[in-house]
Amino acid sequence: KVKKVLIEQMASLVTEHMESYGTKFLKRCFPTKVEKLESNRLQVTWKNTDLGTEETDSFDTVMWAVGRAPDTETLNLETVGVKTNSETGKIVVDASEATSVPHIYAIGDITEGRPELTPTAIAAGKLLAQRLFGQSSELMDYDNVPTTVFTPLEYGCVGLSEEMAVRCYGSDNIEVYHAYYKPLEFTVAERDATQCYMKVVCLREREQRILGLHFIGPNAGEVIQGFALGIKCGATYPQLMKTIGIHPTCAEEITKLHITKRSGLDATVTGC
Amino acid sequence: KVKKVLIEQMASLVTEHMESYGTKFLKRCFPTKVEKLESNRLQVTWKNTDLGTEETDSFDTVMWAVGRAPDTETLNLETVGVKTNSETGKIVVDASEATSVPHIYAIGDITEGRPELTPTAIAAGKLLAQRLFGQSSELMDYDNVPTTVFTPLEYGCVGLSEEMAVRCYGSDNIEVYHAYYKPLEFTVAERDATQCYMKVVCLREREQRILGLHFIGPNAGEVIQGFALGIKCGATYPQLMKTIGIHPTCAEEITKLHITKRSGLDATVTGC
Ligand SMILES: Cc1cc2nc3c(=O)[nH]c(=O)nc-3n(C[C@H](O)[C@H](O)[C@H](O)COP(=O)(O)OP(=O)(O)OC[C@H]3O[C@@H](n4cnc5c(N)ncnc54)[C@H](O)[C@@H]3O)c2cc1C
Ligand SMILES: Cc1cc2nc3c(=O)[nH]c(=O)nc-3n(C[C@H](O)[C@H](O)[C@H](O)COP(=O)(O)OP(=O)(O)OC[C@H]3O[C@@H](n4cnc5c(N)ncnc54)[C@H](O)[C@@H]3O)c2cc1C
Repeated sequence: KVKKVLIEQMASLVTEHMESYGTKFLKRCFPTKVEKLESNRLQVTWKNTDLGTEETDSFDTVMWAVGRAPDTETLNLETVGVKTNSETGKIVVDASEATSVPHIYAIGDITEGRPELTPTAIAAGKLLAQRLFGQSSELMDYDNVPTTVFTPLEYGCVGLSEEMAVRCYGSDNIEVYHAYYKPLEFTVAERDATQCYMKVVCLREREQRILGLHFIGPNAGEVIQGFALGIKCGATYPQLMKTIGIHPTCAEEITKLHITKRSGLDATVTGC
Repeated sequence: KVKKVLIEQMASLVTEHMESYGTKFLKRCFPTKVEKLESNRLQVTWKNTDLGTEETDSFDTVMWAVGRAPDTETLNLETVGVKTNSETGKIVVDASEATSVPHIYAIGDITEGRPELTPTAIAAGKLLAQRLFGQSSELMDYDNVPTTVFTPLEYGCVGLSEEMAVRCYGSDNIEVYHAYYKPLEFTVAERDATQCYMKVVCLREREQRILGLHFIGPNAGEVIQGFALGIKCGATYPQLMKTIGIHPTCAEEITKLHITKRSGLDATVTGC
């Protein structure tokens, strides 16, 4: 729930973009059944929780993109004493990936509070193996895990959301630099780019350490990956400003961010 | 000349890719004239310096991509004593962008030994203005300027080439991690990916500071930009390895580089 609120600003830019290209979103609607009609079309019934009504429509194709729920109930974990979160069914672990039974470990999607991502699961597994076999004592660092939502307009980020940064440090102590920009290839195709947006969330104190980076646009995953290394290395806003851009790319706009949200100035990037 | 040798390995991957898609390269051939034929086609004559012969062929279109030469001769710079390089015609400057006449400055493409890039010229200009008007004493940092060649398969890099690193530190003191990888979208289209390649050049000493990063593949500019921030922050190979990948992207392969050139092992990345 917390996560959902935190990415709301970026998420709505992504859905706005999809809506402008014809996707209809039914928000707070929960499908209750799918029936095959004689015409072979699929009739879906759902509950509209805002209106408290039941609605129905028929479709050519139904695709589920609902994520996964852990199937821990049948594992009989309580016999050995491995605790799960009763709400999510996920296994509770500590920083060393140990469950409530110290010699039983869990990693990946099944663990409570961890990002559900392939590279995260792999990295956690490698580090756990190294610790178990005495090769190192290094813990998995779950902060600054970069990730991308591969929607038509991609959303990539690393580090804290603006809302989380405000919550952790107070709004007086953070500075958000942001920009609406137009990818070069959109110019050629005369495509609308009102949802192409980026922001960097920094501490406001002299050093201005970067807490989070958020990018909506083409190839967000490719763009964010390298910045994740920068943030891993403790990058500051002045270091970002001293990084020379690669022209013409979308990523270079990140090295030019200078309008603060606080200023209220128009953050639209103009010109090539 | 030095620059040409340094990027030869990467350049030949890019040209190999173009050749495999039908582009014919005439190497060490210098055009001497272009004539319009009655058919409206363009007849080009060139000197093949390898064979010492003159050759000719006709084409629909002729496009010049020859770069620019500085037009300093007509400026009468010698009257005020501003020195140029007699071979290149470019203006000789020091680290503060001062010419041989201390109160005359030059920046951008016109200056000797500087990269010919828009963001570099802009950054140098801003810093010079700040220094001239006493706002700071910071010099432009020409090291670690990232750049990209926007060929069909893009080549992006930041920092030292492998050859330059060997020259500066000796081959015993550098480690090169490399990989041939296949972009996900190439898999779908069953495209050949033998030229998609990346390497990171590090110091070999315990800290393994990253000296250079080289990437050939789709969106190389978008990929390299963030890593340029990392390298600006003094990123090391262990920090790169601790950076969690974004799956599935091409850029994530950089965070997984583990085969050294020294080992002679096959550097082809397999699997998803
Ligand atoms: C549709 C979809 C798309 C995704 N896209 C991405 C993406 O683009 N990028 C990304 O980073 N992540 C993505 N993910 C998430 C990613 O797949 C998971 O985070 C990752 O697979 C987690 O690894 P894991 O080892 O924890 O779990 P899994 O990969 O699910 O491995 C768990 C294994 O345990 C086995 N198992 C289960 N119960 C038992 C049992 N009782 N006994 C023995 N074996 C058992 C399962 O069969 C399975 O093989 C996606 C997930 C889904 C569902
Ligand atoms: C075809 C081409 C493609 C390029 N693509 C890229 C790219 O993708 N990315 C990138 O980063 N860089 C690219 N570059 C390089 C980039 O354009 C230059 O590095 C950049 O413009 C250099 O800026 P500058 O201010 O030094 O020179 P310029 O931008 O050339 O500015 C010099 C100005 O001085 C004026 N001038 C000349 N003589 C006089 C005079 N006697 N009196 C008054 N004014 C004078 C000129 O008219 C010009 O306006 C490209 C260059 C070319 C030619």
